[in-house]
Amino acid sequence: MKSLTSLFEAQSVAVVGASDDPHKLGGRPIAYMKRLGYQGQLIPINPKTSVVQGLAAKPSLEALDAPVDLAVIATPEKFVEGIIKQGLACGIKNFVVFASGYAEINEEGINKQQQLEALFKGTDARLLGPNCLGFINTETQLVASFTTAMEHHPLKAGGLSFAGHSGALGAYWLDKTIRANLGVSKWISSGNEVNIQLADIVEYLARDPQTAVICLYIEEIRQPEKFEQALLLAKQQGKPVIAMKGGKTTAGARATQAHTASNPFNGADYQAIFDNTDVIEVASLSEMIRYSEFYLGENQLLGQRIGLVSISGGAGVMLSDQLTEAGFCISDFSDDLCQKVRPLLSDFSALQNPIDLTAALVAEPDMLKNVTNELIESEEFDAIVIFMGLMDSIADKLAAGVIELKKNPNCPIFLIWMGGQKQLLVKISETGVMVFEEIPELVALMSKLAK
Amino acid sequence: MKSLTSLFEAQSVAVVGASDDPHKLGGRPIAYMKRLGYQGQLIPINPKTSVVQGLAAKPSLEALDAPVDLAVIATPEKFVEGIIKQGLACGIKNFVVFASGYAEINEEGINKQQQLEALFKGTDARLLGPNCLGFINTETQLVASFTTAMEHHPLKAGGLSFAGHSGALGAYWLDKTIRANLGVSKWISSGNEVNIQLADIVEYLARDPQTAVICLYIEEIRQPEKFEQALLLAKQQGKPVIAMKGGKTTAGARATQAHTASNPFNGADYQAIFDNTDVIEVASLSEMIRYSEFYLGENQLLGQRIGLVSISGGAGVMLSDQLTEAGFCISDFSDDLCQKVRPLLSDFSALQNPIDLTAALVAEPDMLKNVTNELIESEEFDAIVIFMGLMDSIADKLAAGVIELKKNPNCPIFLIWMGGQKQLLVKISETGVMVFEEIPELVALMSKLAK
Repeated sequence: MKSLTSLFEAQSVAVVGASDDPHKLGGRPIAYMKRLGYQGQLIPINPKTSVVQGLAAKPSLEALDAPVDLAVIATPEKFVEGIIKQGLACGIKNFVVFASGYAEINEEGINKQQQLEALFKGTDARLLGPNCLGFINTETQLVASFTTAMEHHPLKAGGLSFAGHSGALGAYWLDKTIRANLGVSKWISSGNEVNIQLADIVEYLARDPQTAVICLYIEEIRQPEKFEQALLLAKQQGKPVIAMKGGKTTAGARATQAHTASNPFNGADYQAIFDNTDVIEVASLSEMIRYSEFYLGENQLLGQRIGLVSISGGAGVMLSDQLTEAGFCISDFSDDLCQKVRPLLSDFSALQNPIDLTAALVAEPDMLKNVTNELIESEEFDAIVIFMGLMDSIADKLAAGVIELKKNPNCPIFLIWMGGQKQLLVKISETGVMVFEEIPELVALMSKLAK
Repeated sequence: MKSLTSLFEAQSVAVVGASDDPHKLGGRPIAYMKRLGYQGQLIPINPKTSVVQGLAAKPSLEALDAPVDLAVIATPEKFVEGIIKQGLACGIKNFVVFASGYAEINEEGINKQQQLEALFKGTDARLLGPNCLGFINTETQLVASFTTAMEHHPLKAGGLSFAGHSGALGAYWLDKTIRANLGVSKWISSGNEVNIQLADIVEYLARDPQTAVICLYIEEIRQPEKFEQALLLAKQQGKPVIAMKGGKTTAGARATQAHTASNPFNGADYQAIFDNTDVIEVASLSEMIRYSEFYLGENQLLGQRIGLVSISGGAGVMLSDQLTEAGFCISDFSDDLCQKVRPLLSDFSALQNPIDLTAALVAEPDMLKNVTNELIESEEFDAIVIFMGLMDSIADKLAAGVIELKKNPNCPIFLIWMGGQKQLLVKISETGVMVFEEIPELVALMSKLAK
């Protein structure tokens, strides 16, 4: 099988059905690549005009001087087959088809999809889709997609890649990476998977030097053995894989059939595959982004011993309960650590884990940094969780303290700051400290990361 | 036992240890009541000055012309006992003590607390605290508290009340109600519970005509039988009780001891009590606020049949799976409903539950309202879940459609709008539609509400 490199790293792209209107399906890919500065050659294809969005256009794929690396077909379904035939005839090896109306709708659609598939038999050419949102490669700012997720935003390059059966969930994922200021490498919507399937894409991402963490949304696993091999390759390469699995129930499976003609009950045992390959399964995109942040921050898997520092006694109680129930240990302090921490606390604070800073913190905001630093330096903990709430009047000083603490690499710090000031929380996040609003979401993340 | 009415609905308040500085512990209650317009009589007590924050002050409780309904003691611990003796001697029946340094710290503190307790033996006077943040009654804007949660905000009166063992968690709860624009009736921090305990407070709230929904944070249940009776009374009054329970594990219990001298392992079986009285247990304040919104919106408990309308096929799959796993039924449409919905959808949409609106929605934003309305009118569902994502270009029209739908009382609508515009989401929330960012948080809420 041919590598997907020439597809996902195409140096020249023709957009068939190119539109002058940057909001139309055939106009978006061109508008995005113009705005973002695609580093390859971009050729609109439109039989009715010689200029599209200011670029010289060709009337058809046949009229190209040389075959492009990639043809993006943005036309309605009825034109797709003819265009692919033309493209194949003139030596184009990679196609993306956006159109719907194939195996996901009815018998007639299944036939049409089989006809598409037949065109590629015996060739080394490849098709992404149909019924997909295409793909994005931020290295070269190649946008073979009409997704609106990055309509108003630049695309930051980075180590996070996504592939999946839902273009819309992919779009929301992309939007969430933008909001979380995470850099993205490849973004791939595989649709009905006529001849490029998730197994192929995961293999590509596992080998892709720019990809550090792989996110997946999976409906049907079409080549289970190959898929498992690809996941194992990712594991060998040290790339965490974080997945959402759709179609686990009869109701969900019925919905996948109408969505991407997927049959999740095809015999592939996703749970066994995930277990064998250390895939982290999540239930939401927000959770997926949280795990991605953790791994992109070059954090390591955690041990069990957690040190807690809280401004609220009640929050310390809830954290102790929920972390203990998740299998962590709120371990006792050594005598040595007690001696070091005692002079830093008010008389009302008990010398135990969790430490309750009490309202004494207000008069002495450095207490947070100083106490936590002793916990880190003691090497008695595998991670420290800090709980803050409100504290507007000293928020600047507390935030500066947390940022200072992050410089100590001894153990990771997690911060919950309930009702915290958004700007400060962004500033803290940028240093690599993960910030949460609530206890259960932190505990859920930690419990999946501790092994 | 004397009712707590004269405490929580005090018509006259003396603040002992009154400060001219509105940011100090003894200055905050006065500053808040002045700003918010407390409807009763407010008298600062300070031996060194005759005017505090512009109000005429008295040198001591003894110097009052008549006993006030309530004395708020904002002094350090060492003065508390003497002040209470004075107050009792001159006929004051209700006290709040903020000071820490009692049973939560050490043996000496336990003795001090027992001495306080002894002062009230054989009297009908009552003490809230010590080691507490006091209470708030929004009906009269009585703020017997130094919590900073509402420092920059008005306090909106409404049907939601809170009582609990953590003043800080209470403060964050108050902050969250302000952000969610929910009205609050009583807010009570019970601290070490020398002679007013949660059981008493819940009984009061169950009878309080202004309280519609009761939120609790519980460490030790000190009078289990009375507590259960109070919860039953709330149930009989049709008031839902939503609780967070701290101190379920050994580590958590150790933290409650240092926090409010609580022993959660005193033999009271909180789980049995919650089960017997239909208390809804939650793991976070955010969840608590979500349930409160549901009940304050006069929503009813849900049935099992859920109709799904989604802009994303993948999200429809995830919703189907997660709702099915939570015990709901993504039920089939009747032939009649199919006939009504068919002409409203694009040819690419399958006629099944969940409905995938597809990108056809962009050209025809009314499709959301029209399709959902047919589902509501069919009476084939106990609730409708709408999933939207992004859709900035038509967001106004979609939001107007959802608001229009809410007017139909046939069944509740829940909305997930991933990456939605904040202002529009607030507008939709204000009509009583609950809005979520993610699927799991909605499913968790629905599964606890369906009975």
